[in-house]
Amino acid sequence: MKKTFLTLAVLSTVSAVQADEGMWMPQQLPQVAKQLKAAGLKLDPKALTNLTEFPMGAIVSLGGCSASFVSPEGLVATNHHCVYNSVAYNSKPGRDYLADGFLAKTLGDEIPAAPGSRVFVTKEVRNVTQQVIDKTTAALEGKKRVDAIEKNVKAIVAACEKEEGHRCNVYPYYGGLEYYLIKQMEIRDVRLVYAPPAGVGKFGGDTDNWMWPRHTGDFGFYRAYVSKDGKAADFSKDNVPYVPKHHLKLAKDGLKEGDFVMVLGYPGRTNRHRLPSEVDFTFSWDYPNFVKSSGERLAIIGEQTKTDDAARLKYAGMVAGINNYYKNRQGMLDSYANSDFLARKTKEHAELKAWVNSNPARAKEYAADLATVEKLIAERQEKAKRDVNVDGIFPRLLGTARTLYRLANERTKPDAERKAGFQERDLPRFAAGVKSVEGTYAENVDKALVMHSLKKYAAQPASEHYADVDAALGIRAGMSDAELSAAVDKLYAGSKLGSTEARTAWLKAKPEDFKNSDDSFIKAAVAMYEGSLKREAEGEEEAGKMQQAYANYMKAKIAFMTSKGLPVYPDANSTLRVTFGKVAGRDHGTADGLAWAPFTTVNGVVAKATGQGEFNAPKAQLDAIKAKDFGNFVDPKLKTVPLAYLATLDITGGNSGSAALNAKGELIGLAFDGTLDSIISDWDFNAANTRSIQVDLRYMLWQMKHVDKADRLLKEMGAQ
Amino acid sequence: MKKTFLTLAVLSTVSAVQADEGMWMPQQLPQVAKQLKAAGLKLDPKALTNLTEFPMGAIVSLGGCSASFVSPEGLVATNHHCVYNSVAYNSKPGRDYLADGFLAKTLGDEIPAAPGSRVFVTKEVRNVTQQVIDKTTAALEGKKRVDAIEKNVKAIVAACEKEEGHRCNVYPYYGGLEYYLIKQMEIRDVRLVYAPPAGVGKFGGDTDNWMWPRHTGDFGFYRAYVSKDGKAADFSKDNVPYVPKHHLKLAKDGLKEGDFVMVLGYPGRTNRHRLPSEVDFTFSWDYPNFVKSSGERLAIIGEQTKTDDAARLKYAGMVAGINNYYKNRQGMLDSYANSDFLARKTKEHAELKAWVNSNPARAKEYAADLATVEKLIAERQEKAKRDVNVDGIFPRLLGTARTLYRLANERTKPDAERKAGFQERDLPRFAAGVKSVEGTYAENVDKALVMHSLKKYAAQPASEHYADVDAALGIRAGMSDAELSAAVDKLYAGSKLGSTEARTAWLKAKPEDFKNSDDSFIKAAVAMYEGSLKREAEGEEEAGKMQQAYANYMKAKIAFMTSKGLPVYPDANSTLRVTFGKVAGRDHGTADGLAWAPFTTVNGVVAKATGQGEFNAPKAQLDAIKAKDFGNFVDPKLKTVPLAYLATLDITGGNSGSAALNAKGELIGLAFDGTLDSIISDWDFNAANTRSIQVDLRYMLWQMKHVDKADRLLKEMGAQ
Repeated sequence: MKKTFLTLAVLSTVSAVQADEGMWMPQQLPQVAKQLKAAGLKLDPKALTNLTEFPMGAIVSLGGCSASFVSPEGLVATNHHCVYNSVAYNSKPGRDYLADGFLAKTLGDEIPAAPGSRVFVTKEVRNVTQQVIDKTTAALEGKKRVDAIEKNVKAIVAACEKEEGHRCNVYPYYGGLEYYLIKQMEIRDVRLVYAPPAGVGKFGGDTDNWMWPRHTGDFGFYRAYVSKDGKAADFSKDNVPYVPKHHLKLAKDGLKEGDFVMVLGYPGRTNRHRLPSEVDFTFSWDYPNFVKSSGERLAIIGEQTKTDDAARLKYAGMVAGINNYYKNRQGMLDSYANSDFLARKTKEHAELKAWVNSNPARAKEYAADLATVEKLIAERQEKAKRDVNVDGIFPRLLGTARTLYRLANERTKPDAERKAGFQERDLPRFAAGVKSVEGTYAENVDKALVMHSLKKYAAQPASEHYADVDAALGIRAGMSDAELSAAVDKLYAGSKLGSTEARTAWLKAKPEDFKNSDDSFIKAAVAMYEGSLKREAEGEEEAGKMQQAYANYMKAKIAFMTSKGLPVYPDANSTLRVTFGKVAGRDHGTADGLAWAPFTTVNGVVAKATGQGEFNAPKAQLDAIKAKDFGNFVDPKLKTVPLAYLATLDITGGNSGSAALNAKGELIGLAFDGTLDSIISDWDFNAANTRSIQVDLRYMLWQMKHVDKADRLLKEMGAQ
Repeated sequence: MKKTFLTLAVLSTVSAVQADEGMWMPQQLPQVAKQLKAAGLKLDPKALTNLTEFPMGAIVSLGGCSASFVSPEGLVATNHHCVYNSVAYNSKPGRDYLADGFLAKTLGDEIPAAPGSRVFVTKEVRNVTQQVIDKTTAALEGKKRVDAIEKNVKAIVAACEKEEGHRCNVYPYYGGLEYYLIKQMEIRDVRLVYAPPAGVGKFGGDTDNWMWPRHTGDFGFYRAYVSKDGKAADFSKDNVPYVPKHHLKLAKDGLKEGDFVMVLGYPGRTNRHRLPSEVDFTFSWDYPNFVKSSGERLAIIGEQTKTDDAARLKYAGMVAGINNYYKNRQGMLDSYANSDFLARKTKEHAELKAWVNSNPARAKEYAADLATVEKLIAERQEKAKRDVNVDGIFPRLLGTARTLYRLANERTKPDAERKAGFQERDLPRFAAGVKSVEGTYAENVDKALVMHSLKKYAAQPASEHYADVDAALGIRAGMSDAELSAAVDKLYAGSKLGSTEARTAWLKAKPEDFKNSDDSFIKAAVAMYEGSLKREAEGEEEAGKMQQAYANYMKAKIAFMTSKGLPVYPDANSTLRVTFGKVAGRDHGTADGLAWAPFTTVNGVVAKATGQGEFNAPKAQLDAIKAKDFGNFVDPKLKTVPLAYLATLDITGGNSGSAALNAKGELIGLAFDGTLDSIISDWDFNAANTRSIQVDLRYMLWQMKHVDKADRLLKEMGAQ
């Protein structure tokens, strides 16, 4: 039973070829046209490069989530967890849309989404690298470089945003080697149309999050509204549904194992091009620390809200968020512990350096910057360790006060000179921000979280404290818990920022108003202002050096990969990407001897349903399943309604709600998750393990037709 | 998403073709030669028909389990659960071979297996239908027919057994349509050579029994010993290892998914040719009743032995047996509840009857017997319901007394006229039986079980009681629990049969000795004797009618199937059969969205190990796994040691310990179980669900080499 090394090597090669790695920028797709055709795409790959034509034109961003237009009347399909905050925001004791679901019977019954909800429709994408890093900028270093880049970016953005109702952003790619301007129509009147009960949309809850088999009906619908003349506008009863240039058609045929599938959306962030030292720091210090801290925060929120339904509803969104990352990071740590990732990364980086140094011209161009990147990373990590407790010590309303005071100061400058994020264009976001506190804040919870961090911070030696921060909060290193508690109580008691009216008033206040205020949080914000500006400048000095060196590192890496004939896609950066692959289970699951089937079905809901908590499937749904009231949504092989499916796609956070399309470009579901042992692919893509999880369109339509009777929407989408 | 009926129909057809149904008699294999070749067999199918040549000549029976010779020195490989009673028999407090495992360091250290242990080596197989149902017999009915068949069978057996040391049996096939004589060398000196610790051999215990994923190292070794001149003999220190004519060679290459595999063994009983009324009775009444009763019996044994280690060891075998069938029957009931089996069976039987009645000659030949079978089955079921509690009311030693008295009576007749089972040839079995009581009997447990049944029997109306039985036990219908308890205590107190010496003495006693005895159990046995003979005769009357009609029903069925071009294999009857198929997982598991991988590995042991109870993997094993001390036994794809694998084979109880061979006829593991949702295949073969579970040879060898250091045996088997 001896096997040669060759056998293993051959197997590895096969896996590598089968990998569906790649979050491709749409314009890169012609580079992988052969692979797309081989995978089964029936459309011309070139048709996918134009972001304002079909089908890309139907893909939108919600800011943090992905979505798509699925009707000619601006109906937007996305995940339940992407509309979750809007459902929570509209819920209150006695009107629990989270538990019961929400379905607008008519257009007039559609209700405003949570404040700040947006639908971003892409209008233009342009490479602006030459304008961002112009000749002058290229010669600068440190903070000066950062300032110059910011100035250039603001100018590009300002010119772009001259068209009202639009939002423009310049995104760095390949660690700042390239920059693209993305212009999007920013639809501000977003309404909640339909969300199934949490017993469907969040079925399985945190227990099943990142898990397979999965039975979460993670879908919901918004609608984009605009003024009668078709412009982006604030909410108004007179607004009308937006008519998108393109919308997705529903697939007529169900998917089966092996079918081509692609997902179009806005992946947030990956770290595939990181250096070995970054990998080491992240997995040896940062993530372990995050996991520990998240567990502590969840326990505190749980304790503080256990007898307070209103507070529990307010923190539901935060709890969901923490849980999500908690499990995510722990999952990555588990995968990392069983992998040779760091060794491989170290070897790859050594190869890159050897390639650079093997040629004098290349060494001259890249070697110094490679060394600089390493040095800057080491410094940054040192600082992160020291500051680990600082983020948590600020009461939320103190954070609001600091933001408001910064805004007041920035507003004294001409718009173009203000810090990015504090310009006129950003003001509506501040307004929404101060309002959203209402539904997401409870003083007791906030105070308990702050105390938790403060105790740790106070335990750090004085040399690791910031004097201005300590003074502003009235604390010092070595303080007892009782002293800290008294200081904190005093802070909270002395502020009126708990009132939305008060916060809103401060939006227009001048710096002098802040300086003259007796409000404890405002006073603390003013006291810390100079110190924080100084720290910001130090950070920018470092960031400028890093941008310069890191961009050159990426340039070296791309040149190295290109010399080996390999295309390079940029790390995810919240811009539109395409990933393609096929519907596929796995020959191994997470338990020895088990594998993953490519589909789950509604039968699994019945098996998991407990009638309570995370597994509280609605009775109407269970009745329909038991009665086999499946209509046309039965899969011929599974003999029941498919619920979710696995695919060999390369997605990450931000892809939530992304449209999954078949070979003909028709909608066949929505991506909503990855699996725990494959999320390390944010750093290290693992073809054998990596699967995305999509909710099957057939399940969405079945739930809408046979359980929730959403016939109005089905008709609008052209469902059969 | 509409699918036509045709799609479904096509899918069904494909499944049917892929089915690996069939427990083929070796001589039938040329009928399926095409399928064998297509499946990948490299040997000539004809080579498998000769039971005394290679490889069939290496396959042996242990009586209830299957096994095979794996060395030229009579080493026998079988399942751990097949040597379990021998390990338990040799264990005692302070010397727990069950927990610690047993490994004979030298030939001289090999210890006698449990009394009655046998290795049966097949010497001849012959169709004797014409002699069993000769012309005279064919004309008889009822008990006369049964008596004639028994007389013929005994004559055939007697002639065959003239060669000393051999055991001959005549087995009915196709419900008594055909009879075969099987002559086997009966090796009586069987010794325990090696059994891994229960934490390996029974790892997973009853929890994992019938389950996948499975991590049970279900293997162990006996050795067959014979006298110096090569004859079967009782245990003697002078005996020497038996030299088999053939033994299996170990496979050099490991298996992988899709590989051909065949299992050669002695499946006990299947019911694939049963009538719809039998199916209905079994699943609506018999199995539900069995499941309930088993649960009650297990609870009683558990309660009675919970503080008594010695008693617990004595009943370990019975508990394992009850648990096994308990889970088996419940599994079948679950599958039945989700199936259309009865409807299909009813339809098939209606088709058979229609085919019979569509032709006057056929109707004349078969129709009456088909009706008779139905009538006899109804009567038999009626009686079974009435007698449901009777079996349990007899103390075990009263059973021994009844057997001993029957033996004494039979021994007054010439050997050839004695009832089958009570002839001279059977005497050693009686001797072993009375001795084996020692290690498997505790009065308190036995009494508690008897009381449990007696209470139910006493609650039945007097019309359902047997007067002679009631009189013999001193009970009557309607007795209170206290009265029953007093009667039972009196019975137990009045007998000396608890002593092995006493039981052994009764083996040679005459009927008058029994009639004159004061021993309570002996007296009760004598008192019930006439009644039980009468009931036996009634049963034989019914059995004779049934044999005649049932054989003709099978004849009709075979003719019907043959008219459709389908080969028919007989239901399992504890004779040698061959099943072939391939290594294969399943595209569905038991949980929605999960599938079954074809292999488990030692990694799964670590995941399941709890350090106690059923999941108490030995430390030495866990250490070896954690240290990746895998030697040459690593599978190139799994990257660890494979433990068990699934195959599309058609096996059932009795196949335990069967050799699994690869396409070249080399040993690649041992079959040891089926899976819970496929064991209904004893009645209704389901190709999609049915998988046999084999322990992988690589795991056996790894455990022997790297953990238990059984180098002597490895060398003997030619392991590399």
